[in-house]
Amino acid sequence: MTSRKDAGSLTRRVLGIDPGLTITGWGVVDGDGTNASAIGYGVIRTKSKAPRAERLGQIAEEVRALIREHQPAELAVEQQFVAVNVRSAMVIGEARAAAMIAAADCSVPVFEFAPTEIKQSVAGWGGAPKEQVQQMVVVQLGLTDLPGPLDISDALAIALARLAELRLEFAMARS
Amino acid sequence: MTSRKDAGSLTRRVLGIDPGLTITGWGVVDGDGTNASAIGYGVIRTKSKAPRAERLGQIAEEVRALIREHQPAELAVEQQFVAVNVRSAMVIGEARAAAMIAAADCSVPVFEFAPTEIKQSVAGWGGAPKEQVQQMVVVQLGLTDLPGPLDISDALAIALARLAELRLEFAMARS
Repeated sequence: MTSRKDAGSLTRRVLGIDPGLTITGWGVVDGDGTNASAIGYGVIRTKSKAPRAERLGQIAEEVRALIREHQPAELAVEQQFVAVNVRSAMVIGEARAAAMIAAADCSVPVFEFAPTEIKQSVAGWGGAPKEQVQQMVVVQLGLTDLPGPLDISDALAIALARLAELRLEFAMARS
Repeated sequence: MTSRKDAGSLTRRVLGIDPGLTITGWGVVDGDGTNASAIGYGVIRTKSKAPRAERLGQIAEEVRALIREHQPAELAVEQQFVAVNVRSAMVIGEARAAAMIAAADCSVPVFEFAPTEIKQSVAGWGGAPKEQVQQMVVVQLGLTDLPGPLDISDALAIALARLAELRLEFAMARS
């Protein structure tokens, strides 16, 4: 799934997903171990009055459409273990599952990251506040402005965390 | 989606699902408000060593296959709000989502039932022990024996709970 653009240049495309029943952030990032660039980003919104199954089906369908459009080699998603209560944990699990099932349907491998891993990777320390992570996403991707709702920068941060993990792989491929 | 077999006879087919990441029970039940019969039942098992996304994708795919094979008018699923902890709540939510997304993919409406509603409906009281619910499933469906793992009788109980809810609708259609 790795595309060789020219001699010595390897690029991997990652679709980062920040899943939520109401708003799911997504970001497609190309990286080669040195540079990373945002190919596209946005949100999937579902209607709060629609039946639960319909909302989850919509998230899965839109993630499948994003995979068809952008052809990512991998999908990266947050591995959330913190929730206010059992009920909200189930909702988070359901939205996360929608993204993972869409990836499985399209045979795209999924990589999971804990929130602290993402912060550590993007901002340099696991306890970084959300605003700092957001700012680092803007800097690392060379964006001129914040990419809208926090759900989008979170999704881009997840994709960047996966690309950072691949640095050794990129280095070995180059040597 | 209601099929009229002959004058005065209405039958509705419901696919009941008891979702779990390792074992998902399923049962297809036909009911007309008076009688109910089990058309098929079984379990979907996933490998505990397989990646999470693959396991959820497998559950969704097998539920879609069951829908294609049995053509149920509706899917009924347990609405679980009790979990040991946040982590297990997320896993339950993920498996539940796989069943709901499969239904949404096939445009089959989903009906959710709380565990107490299912027990109330099938065994007559919301505090009924699992064994009693299991026994009532056997009696109501005229089975000669227990249908295997508890996940299957739970799935059949969920389908029966939905059919019980439809009793008034059946009565009105007959009058």
